Amino acid sequence: MAESFHGLHRTRYCAEFGVDNLGQTVTACGFVDNLRNLGGLLFISLRDRTGVVQCTVEQSQHPALYEKCSGVHGEYVLAVTGEVCRRSAEAVNPKMKTGEIEIIASDVRILSEAKTTPFEIVDHCNTNEELRLKYRYLDLRRPVMQQGIVLRSLAAKLTRDYFYSQGFLEIETPMLTKSTPEGARDYLVPSRVHKGSFYALPQSPQQYKQLLMLAGFDRYMQLVRCFRDEDLRADRQPEFTQIDLEMSFVDIDDVISVNEGFLKTVWRELLGIELETPFLRLPYREAMDRFGSDKPDLRFGFELRNLSDIVKNSGFKVFSGAVEAGGSVRAINVKGAAAKFSRKEIDSLGEYVKTYRAKGLAWIKWGDEMTSSFTKFLTEEETAAILRAMEAEQGDVIFVVADRDRVVFDALGALRCECARRLDLLKKDDFKFLWVTEFPLFEYSEEEDRFVAMHHPFTSPMEEDIDMLESAPEKVRAKAYDIVLNGTELGGGSIRIFQTDLQERMFKALGFTREQAYHQFGHLLNAFQYGTPPHGGMAYGFDRLMMLLTGKDSIRDVIPFPKVQNAAELMTSCPSDVSEQQLEELGIMLRPGVVPEGGEP
Amino acid sequence: MAESFHGLHRTRYCAEFGVDNLGQTVTACGFVDNLRNLGGLLFISLRDRTGVVQCTVEQSQHPALYEKCSGVHGEYVLAVTGEVCRRSAEAVNPKMKTGEIEIIASDVRILSEAKTTPFEIVDHCNTNEELRLKYRYLDLRRPVMQQGIVLRSLAAKLTRDYFYSQGFLEIETPMLTKSTPEGARDYLVPSRVHKGSFYALPQSPQQYKQLLMLAGFDRYMQLVRCFRDEDLRADRQPEFTQIDLEMSFVDIDDVISVNEGFLKTVWRELLGIELETPFLRLPYREAMDRFGSDKPDLRFGFELRNLSDIVKNSGFKVFSGAVEAGGSVRAINVKGAAAKFSRKEIDSLGEYVKTYRAKGLAWIKWGDEMTSSFTKFLTEEETAAILRAMEAEQGDVIFVVADRDRVVFDALGALRCECARRLDLLKKDDFKFLWVTEFPLFEYSEEEDRFVAMHHPFTSPMEEDIDMLESAPEKVRAKAYDIVLNGTELGGGSIRIFQTDLQERMFKALGFTREQAYHQFGHLLNAFQYGTPPHGGMAYGFDRLMMLLTGKDSIRDVIPFPKVQNAAELMTSCPSDVSEQQLEELGIMLRPGVVPEGGEP
Repeated sequence: MAESFHGLHRTRYCAEFGVDNLGQTVTACGFVDNLRNLGGLLFISLRDRTGVVQCTVEQSQHPALYEKCSGVHGEYVLAVTGEVCRRSAEAVNPKMKTGEIEIIASDVRILSEAKTTPFEIVDHCNTNEELRLKYRYLDLRRPVMQQGIVLRSLAAKLTRDYFYSQGFLEIETPMLTKSTPEGARDYLVPSRVHKGSFYALPQSPQQYKQLLMLAGFDRYMQLVRCFRDEDLRADRQPEFTQIDLEMSFVDIDDVISVNEGFLKTVWRELLGIELETPFLRLPYREAMDRFGSDKPDLRFGFELRNLSDIVKNSGFKVFSGAVEAGGSVRAINVKGAAAKFSRKEIDSLGEYVKTYRAKGLAWIKWGDEMTSSFTKFLTEEETAAILRAMEAEQGDVIFVVADRDRVVFDALGALRCECARRLDLLKKDDFKFLWVTEFPLFEYSEEEDRFVAMHHPFTSPMEEDIDMLESAPEKVRAKAYDIVLNGTELGGGSIRIFQTDLQERMFKALGFTREQAYHQFGHLLNAFQYGTPPHGGMAYGFDRLMMLLTGKDSIRDVIPFPKVQNAAELMTSCPSDVSEQQLEELGIMLRPGVVPEGGEP
Repeated sequence: MAESFHGLHRTRYCAEFGVDNLGQTVTACGFVDNLRNLGGLLFISLRDRTGVVQCTVEQSQHPALYEKCSGVHGEYVLAVTGEVCRRSAEAVNPKMKTGEIEIIASDVRILSEAKTTPFEIVDHCNTNEELRLKYRYLDLRRPVMQQGIVLRSLAAKLTRDYFYSQGFLEIETPMLTKSTPEGARDYLVPSRVHKGSFYALPQSPQQYKQLLMLAGFDRYMQLVRCFRDEDLRADRQPEFTQIDLEMSFVDIDDVISVNEGFLKTVWRELLGIELETPFLRLPYREAMDRFGSDKPDLRFGFELRNLSDIVKNSGFKVFSGAVEAGGSVRAINVKGAAAKFSRKEIDSLGEYVKTYRAKGLAWIKWGDEMTSSFTKFLTEEETAAILRAMEAEQGDVIFVVADRDRVVFDALGALRCECARRLDLLKKDDFKFLWVTEFPLFEYSEEEDRFVAMHHPFTSPMEEDIDMLESAPEKVRAKAYDIVLNGTELGGGSIRIFQTDLQERMFKALGFTREQAYHQFGHLLNAFQYGTPPHGGMAYGFDRLMMLLTGKDSIRDVIPFPKVQNAAELMTSCPSDVSEQQLEELGIMLRPGVVPEGGEP
């Protein structure tokens, strides 16, 4: 039976007891981390979020207490009152913060009993994630998980402190907002008062933060929950936290400079690492050409080279045909990989690039001798030119993809990362930041057969490209920037359009009629007419930032209560069925044939 | 046409320019607050969130610039470059922070033109709230609104700083949670992946924060958005922000002490007021007896007195009958009101109490002479005893209500506040805090014909009352506490049940079968079995706190983008209709006859 806590007062946290408490009578509270009974002496290791302290119950001194505590086991919750004593010399544990002392118990209250936990409460618990998520409250007791959540809490504090110090205000924006068709799929919330109408949970507070600039708040930030009803990938959650910010009277350099200061602060304060700024800036075009990716991982080389000119007239039709069709032939040189990449390994990389729609992977392996999948189809001069272009040496492996540009970039961009992974070059404590800039303003959507905004329709074109908005939209570059760390997009943003006339040209280029634009964005377009400061901003995925900061492989490990791939939460079993009355009040019903998984309530 | 901001750099905020900038060439940016043209001299008052600075364009020096700026008017957005000069002695404005200087413009960029705003951008804009909310981005430009939002931002920072300093961690809890039938109505979110199933937006993170205690985080806090789909009153919003906290290994005094420290800090830092602690604590019973309310306003007296004993045998059946039927006769003495309350005023107070279901309001007005609605029905001794009991003197007005206790308390509790309001006793800068404690654990729900939890089903009974859980549940008091300020409940909380057996007795008393309890709260009840620290917590309505701190009459004035009474947001017109495709993807449809207000999309 659980005893009461009434009248007790915890002296301090477990790991805070030390030699300065010697001789004091104290009360320690916590979970039983482990318990050893050495015939007449009961050693209870008591744990809280700070660490552990050893409490000792002596049968000779307190036979009844000893008896009472003999039934205790792991995860019981105790309050132990006793004297802080120095451990005997041989019992001192230098690895423990509290290793010099122990609490000799004079009283123990068993505040809560505990069943045997479904997995051990230790850092390496060796259980499957599903079980961990079902018992998340136990999973979160593991010190490694506790540390992650504590660090997240500190990072949030640090974020706010930094941006406040830079004149930002945290301003809350609504969660029940208006559904907009642009962007990802909205989570909808049926309205009871306005039956048949719906709120949408925000995908980001984009329009609100722009309106806050129009309202004159000048610098806004918010740690804000956002929602996207998309099919989940490993690093996506249906709800996620964003560090969102917006600034008035700024251009790209102002935004970048404030944000480099932010990242410097976080890395210094949380990891003790001094980042060098300014970070490298790579225009999108260059990032694609050199790395096949708009979020290149710079921890290793293997840059792309364009071989099209060398092979465009080649008799090898796989190459020359790709160039002829408007595509290209590009390659990477995986330096020194010949010793490590067996023929089997190379074949498996060939399979790997097929997931990026590459039809094949041509290769040269320059080991003790040179072998290749394709040089036999080339002239000697062509092969020599390729080797020269790739700065190939003995020991290298060269991979070539010939296809449409998009496929070439996707395949080689992914391949260079995959090679680095297999060569174990991805050090988690090596942090390579860069800005990718000058993104195209538009991308062509084959699905919708029109240009869509690559970022969003309020992104400003670059001054020097505005004239091409109508004549050559595909060439217009945006005042947009992404911050990339080790191949992951940490965040991104843009300078916004603040001129009504330019905004209208933008909507026209996107194929919106004036009416459609006003139907969807009317409140913002109207607002622009009452005086709009130039403004721009940025948003970071806070979960992803925490994942990289803590070196975890999954964002689920840095979110207290995450959802799994199918958007369910295993601990509370949600989503779940609701009552017919609830649906009736909302004016909605399930479609014929739709049956909730749990069956009828 | 709007000019570009390209290449410009704002020197500092408008109100930060001063004599230390004399002689410097600077750039100021902002909205045009007003503009005066004194024949050859254009005085532009430029405004940002810090205040205003005067910019002067001289026709004699810059005729083209003067010409260009002549068309500018209020709310245009400008960047003014020029030299900071001392104003001539007669032009110095001591009321302005920047009143000693002006910027003599050498260049002005018109960054954005502005239509005439639908209302003036001044503190007292004298327009209706509906228009203000529709153009919220303009409303928020008004200095008084800006200050409120800035203060809210500071208060949020202060809150986090304080609780972090006390060892709390901010930990984020999910927004897509499980619907629970207890409590208010949930906002539901249909799941696309699990068609027919729904998430609920959290009414509070109650269960998650308890699970965080089970997970060993010890002290949790969060500024968190919560949702209740209830019909709105003046001080309610469908989404609202809560300061939410929970602590392990604590009893009532620990929670109260941390929170008094919090409120002291907020009042000191934001208002410069040193609150005296500890605050008064009033048991619920005493609060009802003395003030007819569990959130008494202590800025004035007019305490309730029980006259039942005096009148229980009276020939006046209105009084004696009420006592006989198990009710009571109680009164307040509105000291010194005789001179102010005319007969007409007293009659209107009689109407007022009817809204609280009182059948009538008996009164004695002791002005130059004594008049009364009821003393004629009493003996002289009874009247004298009443006057004695009420400590009546000449100048007083006494109001008596005879009814069921609940009606008597409601009516007199409201009446004493209404009298204070009419007597202008409610000073907004007089802050009277108190804790109301020892709430009943249960209240009887006539609607459901059973006891329901007055706070929530995890609230711990008081140690000394546990034995009555089954025998006399109505007498059991809870370890619950509300913090009350000037008649408003700022927040409240409780010590939670942490023992499985006690929790099961609690559910039994609430009429839950074991199965029902586990169906709804299974994850929490299961979690309790793996070791549960004693814990308790608290939650504040942050919006309401800000309203009282800033002396506003409506929480809409401290929320950047509030919703109106019918839960709509006027600026973006949400909720709104969505496409048939969106509903289809979610597996739901509108019920027959339900038509969204906007008609078909």
